[in-house]
Amino acid sequence: MNMANTITLLTDFGTEDSYVGAMKGAIACIHPSPLIIDLSHDIPPQDIAAARYVLMSAYPYFPVGTVHVAVVDPGVGSQRRAIAIQLEAGFLVGPDNGIFSGVLQTHTPLQVVELTNPQYWRTDTPSQTFHGRDIFAPVAAHLANGLPLRALGRAIAPDSLITLAIPEPTLISDRMNGEWIGAVQYCDRFGNAVTNLSERLLQTTNWHVLVTSAAKDRVVVAGVNHYGAVAEGDYLAIVGSSGWIEIAINRGNAQQELGLGIGTTVRLVL
Amino acid sequence: MNMANTITLLTDFGTEDSYVGAMKGAIACIHPSPLIIDLSHDIPPQDIAAARYVLMSAYPYFPVGTVHVAVVDPGVGSQRRAIAIQLEAGFLVGPDNGIFSGVLQTHTPLQVVELTNPQYWRTDTPSQTFHGRDIFAPVAAHLANGLPLRALGRAIAPDSLITLAIPEPTLISDRMNGEWIGAVQYCDRFGNAVTNLSERLLQTTNWHVLVTSAAKDRVVVAGVNHYGAVAEGDYLAIVGSSGWIEIAINRGNAQQELGLGIGTTVRLVL
Amino acid sequence: MNMANTITLLTDFGTEDSYVGAMKGAIACIHPSPLIIDLSHDIPPQDIAAARYVLMSAYPYFPVGTVHVAVVDPGVGSQRRAIAIQLEAGFLVGPDNGIFSGVLQTHTPLQVVELTNPQYWRTDTPSQTFHGRDIFAPVAAHLANGLPLRALGRAIAPDSLITLAIPEPTLISDRMNGEWIGAVQYCDRFGNAVTNLSERLLQTTNWHVLVTSAAKDRVVVAGVNHYGAVAEGDYLAIVGSSGWIEIAINRGNAQQELGLGIGTTVRLVL
Repeated sequence: MNMANTITLLTDFGTEDSYVGAMKGAIACIHPSPLIIDLSHDIPPQDIAAARYVLMSAYPYFPVGTVHVAVVDPGVGSQRRAIAIQLEAGFLVGPDNGIFSGVLQTHTPLQVVELTNPQYWRTDTPSQTFHGRDIFAPVAAHLANGLPLRALGRAIAPDSLITLAIPEPTLISDRMNGEWIGAVQYCDRFGNAVTNLSERLLQTTNWHVLVTSAAKDRVVVAGVNHYGAVAEGDYLAIVGSSGWIEIAINRGNAQQELGLGIGTTVRLVL
Repeated sequence: MNMANTITLLTDFGTEDSYVGAMKGAIACIHPSPLIIDLSHDIPPQDIAAARYVLMSAYPYFPVGTVHVAVVDPGVGSQRRAIAIQLEAGFLVGPDNGIFSGVLQTHTPLQVVELTNPQYWRTDTPSQTFHGRDIFAPVAAHLANGLPLRALGRAIAPDSLITLAIPEPTLISDRMNGEWIGAVQYCDRFGNAVTNLSERLLQTTNWHVLVTSAAKDRVVVAGVNHYGAVAEGDYLAIVGSSGWIEIAINRGNAQQELGLGIGTTVRLVL
Repeated sequence: MNMANTITLLTDFGTEDSYVGAMKGAIACIHPSPLIIDLSHDIPPQDIAAARYVLMSAYPYFPVGTVHVAVVDPGVGSQRRAIAIQLEAGFLVGPDNGIFSGVLQTHTPLQVVELTNPQYWRTDTPSQTFHGRDIFAPVAAHLANGLPLRALGRAIAPDSLITLAIPEPTLISDRMNGEWIGAVQYCDRFGNAVTNLSERLLQTTNWHVLVTSAAKDRVVVAGVNHYGAVAEGDYLAIVGSSGWIEIAINRGNAQQELGLGIGTTVRLVL
């Protein structure tokens, strides 16, 4: 058994109350020297789609063996499954509600279990409203301690996991250099809208994005390689730090101005 | 001397300024490998009652030997005492202003000292406005290092500690199954009002809570065991993750709608 | 090579998105057991002057060998230099834009390098928008691991560093006990305005501060030694926990009432 120490937490619990602290305490009861890293606790309440993106965009930067706990869990206490997933580079622990489907788009699960073994929970009568503290955090600490995944419960088929549907970009025309339909998959706190259009689609430096939103008629957004390429207040499209094309306004809030949200369709024209 | 490494911090300092960082630096100067866990720094300024609840609700989930530092301290620089308390499972460090009285309701102090020994402070001329950095954080680090409590100052009587008065629930009628008077002891960021009525009072599955507030006439809130038992926007009472009866609105904010606050009287009818 | 473990982070990234988490992951990939301490991630976007103050006010409280990473970096992707600075008590890592000039006012650099050696970056093709994750965090982890500063790139002259100009206080009269011109260097979240007038200037207990702002005509603020010395709602000047004279309102917000900001001139009369 190899021991790891990095455990990340991602929730919609906020930081005012004791919920996050209690999860960390539950970890410290099991792991002697965890490195607990907060991805975010400010996910909008119950916004699984936002959590899916935040997790997938942080995931590649963590060491092998890291255990990622994600708890945006509107179905807690219902029949939704509690799961743990082993990947080549680490583990995912949380509810089976699509929150992991961003990471799983590009990383193949080696093994998936349903957390049916109460031996590794904090208590065998967990709170009906707080599996983060009573199930997910303790299970994560045991995984970091080197416990094999299969000890946590019964194996389930990876293709039985719930997927959060954000449609893959589609090539709709290959006249000229091509044209792709994609969608916004996240809006960050600066109002930048991250699409699911990858920089790998860009075969040319001359490209633009078309946005048709509730707030505006069709807007043509020029692709650039730094913010300063457009005047303050102007739209721009740029490759963000995770490799996705983002729609932004230089020193402004594109999400608000354009009325964008997760799922809004965008069109990339090469 | 046994060495522990978990130190929790609870303050009303917010996270914009350098105050929390300076406390952690002061710990790192003394303890070689602390596990510093933030309970919250977003306690409303000077709200000792809110801090009392957050600390008591996180406390049970931490390992033996944990040192809890709580600094909501409107009296800093005045004659209020600085104290440290040894309990069976850990230590409490902070001002003597009632902030620990939630934990002490159910955990008996083994020993209490006033922090009169400047040898374990960061400096013997501490800032008049920032005992968190100059006294409480260093003292906590020394305790985690295994320093005996009595080294920190002169022993004081546990019953001399200031108590924050939230009246214990009272049985007001034992006709039928009984009827209890209690009070709201905390409102979380979702607007759920946590009462001081314990799930242990519930001898029946058929119960309700009566609320009379400034905002509404008497409201009857049915006790349920999951949020989905009522329609969106409806009131419900439920046992929360710390074992207290909470008053909530399914996908709404009960605190605002009902005008609840710490101390608001509620009545449990069985 | 001595190994240290404390690394602090100071950014304007906020805590909603995955940016801070990714920086911490990048550290954990390099350092086996870092103690990562957040100074703040809530610096107002691109406010180098605020970050300068927060860093200088936390700096003195950290152990020898601490590596401080500060990333408020509007010039990321442009020609601004990425630097690391060795001081007697630790290291500073971030952009060369004046963010370190507060610490450097009172601490002399032993050595400064430009981060030109991609061997110690996360990747030799770093994101144009996120040097925090791809350059600064990895470099900090290597420094904490004991890597000598000079390995990180080419030496540069300390006096070539960009300085953020907050004028030093000036003695404008030595009639009587003297009179000093200074400036506000930070406003904290309570609306207290921290000046650059040091307590060391106070040769007397009878002093006051004059403020002339856009919002008010000249206001005379009496120097006191505790908040309670004035009535609620009244102005006061007091020595704050970092040794600077602060202008405050007892239970109020002096920044808003007086229209203060970084750079506002204030006059200390002794």
